[in-house]
Amino acid sequence: MKHTYEYPRAALTVDCVVFGFDSTQAALQVLLIRRGLAPFKDHWALPGGFVRVEETLDEAARRELEEETNLSTVFLEQLYTFGTVDRDPRERVVSVAYYALTKPADHTTAASTDAAEARWFPVSDLPPLAFDHAEIFATALARLRGKLRYEPVGFELLPPKFTLTQLQRLYESVLGTPLDKRNFRKKVLSHDLLVPLKETHREGTHRPAQLFRFDPVRYEKLKKKGFLFEI
Amino acid sequence: MKHTYEYPRAALTVDCVVFGFDSTQAALQVLLIRRGLAPFKDHWALPGGFVRVEETLDEAARRELEEETNLSTVFLEQLYTFGTVDRDPRERVVSVAYYALTKPADHTTAASTDAAEARWFPVSDLPPLAFDHAEIFATALARLRGKLRYEPVGFELLPPKFTLTQLQRLYESVLGTPLDKRNFRKKVLSHDLLVPLKETHREGTHRPAQLFRFDPVRYEKLKKKGFLFEI
Repeated sequence: MKHTYEYPRAALTVDCVVFGFDSTQAALQVLLIRRGLAPFKDHWALPGGFVRVEETLDEAARRELEEETNLSTVFLEQLYTFGTVDRDPRERVVSVAYYALTKPADHTTAASTDAAEARWFPVSDLPPLAFDHAEIFATALARLRGKLRYEPVGFELLPPKFTLTQLQRLYESVLGTPLDKRNFRKKVLSHDLLVPLKETHREGTHRPAQLFRFDPVRYEKLKKKGFLFEI
Repeated sequence: MKHTYEYPRAALTVDCVVFGFDSTQAALQVLLIRRGLAPFKDHWALPGGFVRVEETLDEAARRELEEETNLSTVFLEQLYTFGTVDRDPRERVVSVAYYALTKPADHTTAASTDAAEARWFPVSDLPPLAFDHAEIFATALARLRGKLRYEPVGFELLPPKFTLTQLQRLYESVLGTPLDKRNFRKKVLSHDLLVPLKETHREGTHRPAQLFRFDPVRYEKLKKKGFLFEI
């Protein structure tokens, strides 16, 4: 005697919008895979797949990411669940979408699985995507933009040591708008969340720039006091 | 030949955290229903139920709300999808949670269905909840708190005409903290989003207070210009 809803049931998938930041090109990127099977065979799509009945949604997202893109330890958060009735031509499929933030070191890992199957694209120049993945991507980008302004998530997209110019390029590339250099530096340094390092970074013929690291312990302390990170 | 994942499949439900604001008690409230069936028979729970294969998630949430609480036109947004493996003792059930904001006029509607079955509780004094509904509720309250500070969602919980005192009580009751009256008034009036009406409201022996309404058209205009609502 099971008081529950019987078949037909929707199938349940997870899909992941994986963001990366290319410092040299100052471009926000997203990781796509080329589908090997119908429907949308040979189309680009977000990595993802069916949720197994014995795994949580987070576990399914991490498993699919690792299987399809080789990525294992990344910042991963649930985004939104997409459930229009006809979003998959096969049958009713509800998809729990996630977004992930990767560090530059993960870029080669992800690409190395199989260059023909997984590839980074600049968000400003995406190919047509399978299913409703363009809508999922747009939702993820909007979430990232909103989050970047009030939480220090940007550091998840940078190497552990970075210059203030790299940080500004990242913000500009996510927000899609240029920022005033003096104001930006004043704001990010006012939080006291960036620790200056004894190292510098030289790019091309520019003079060496100070490297910083983000201080997550201090951030957690400030957050408990009601501090609001804001750029 | 369907390239899809076969059974066993998780069952899919929606659950709704319905918030209301009781002006006279200055209390944020949540609408609960008493379960008539096992599991958790006679326990209080969030209104919700199984998603039908031919309806979207939003449609399922609205249908369940109307069936179980009589509420029809409310502000409703998807919250988060809960998918731990053992959250339902019957079998694997994944639940897409929503939160809803209701106006005081909806309160009696909701209660009138069947007083023994649907009831408003102050959020500060909830009964034990079935399943993982306490966790879903906590997630919804955190979302509402975050949202209230940056979006004018509070007006969804007030009557169309309200006093500044009512507005402040609402903010205080959601955020769980007293606010300075002068600062609060300065901030909410600085946005120019509140339209003073030619009517007043008298409460008890207090002198009549000016009534206001929220101006959603002006808000949309400001938002397009990059304006950030902030309290």
